[in-house]
Amino acid sequence: MSIKVVTISRQFGSGGRTVARLLAEKLGWGYYDKELVKHIAAESGLAESYILDSGEYACSTNSFLFNWAMSAESGRNPGTLPVSDQLYIVQNNVIRSLAEKGCCVIVGRCSDYILRDRDDVLNVFVHADKEFRADRIVRLYGETMDKPAKRLKEKDDKRRTYYRHDTGRIWGAAENYDVTLDSGRLGVEHCSDIIAGIIDELNK
Amino acid sequence: MSIKVVTISRQFGSGGRTVARLLAEKLGWGYYDKELVKHIAAESGLAESYILDSGEYACSTNSFLFNWAMSAESGRNPGTLPVSDQLYIVQNNVIRSLAEKGCCVIVGRCSDYILRDRDDVLNVFVHADKEFRADRIVRLYGETMDKPAKRLKEKDDKRRTYYRHDTGRIWGAAENYDVTLDSGRLGVEHCSDIIAGIIDELNK
Repeated sequence: MSIKVVTISRQFGSGGRTVARLLAEKLGWGYYDKELVKHIAAESGLAESYILDSGEYACSTNSFLFNWAMSAESGRNPGTLPVSDQLYIVQNNVIRSLAEKGCCVIVGRCSDYILRDRDDVLNVFVHADKEFRADRIVRLYGETMDKPAKRLKEKDDKRRTYYRHDTGRIWGAAENYDVTLDSGRLGVEHCSDIIAGIIDELNK
Repeated sequence: MSIKVVTISRQFGSGGRTVARLLAEKLGWGYYDKELVKHIAAESGLAESYILDSGEYACSTNSFLFNWAMSAESGRNPGTLPVSDQLYIVQNNVIRSLAEKGCCVIVGRCSDYILRDRDDVLNVFVHADKEFRADRIVRLYGETMDKPAKRLKEKDDKRRTYYRHDTGRIWGAAENYDVTLDSGRLGVEHCSDIIAGIIDELNK
């Protein structure tokens, strides 16, 4: 099995995004995070702010209108769809086409689920305990009116709920990933080294 | 953080036990699996067959009798307890004392939960997809009247249920472990190399 794509899912504040960036630098691979938002904006015409807020959770759609528009009978006209369904289609297409284009590391956006049919993808989940994450979000994103514990809970709950609803899988369940790592205990840079080592071994 | 103990929890048929044995060999550390059963049998006077069958799930106890016998007022006489509670106490004590004695790798038996207060323990979960595990249990343990899929489901359900009941945690949830690995995708020997590498780095 030769690995060409790594997807990094992560708990808010765990440093998963940094793990992904460092990994891409080490491997000399493409890195898609905010970059992904620009691609999706260009393809869809939707605002980057909307994609940033909603796209993280646009993994699939169960709407009747979506299924009708995507069916052969409808003549496939996604333009008639609600904007959230359009985002789903574009995001899926962009992620699939980037994965096709060359070796890369993709952060979040249910990329593990979207690319589930490929066998050259390594799926990673990064997490850490609440203390480590609370400290990290205050350091990186500053204080807000809400306490760090509340900010973590809200983000985690949202990601968990959408992931379950859209993929039928349990967010953060080990069996959905090839590797999961506790960045708080192992260290953020060490996590990227571990993944790079795994890819070196698999691609020998 | 210097790591002295590794606990390996695993899905049935994932090869987690082999990962643990190879890891212990690589590190030159103690290895407790069947060995643990002998220790518990010697301490408790219980039959090895009973410990093999029940001890895997004896992580904690909520029985009234247990709480009474362990309270200061009772004069602490575990001999009055049901045999399952006695097994719990002995298994706890044996695992704690082995972890105290020297560097080691411990397989299953809720050792991750029993040693949760120590910060020199690395907790690992090994899993694999059903096809890999079904093939492996037939190869290693032979055919039985029950189909492999049924054997896997029964064992997994039992481990999941007891772990949840006894620890309040979700079995196989990434956040309970420092590292989780898919042995089917990564390879059993490779998994032991990954963990050995992580310990080398943490113990530098």
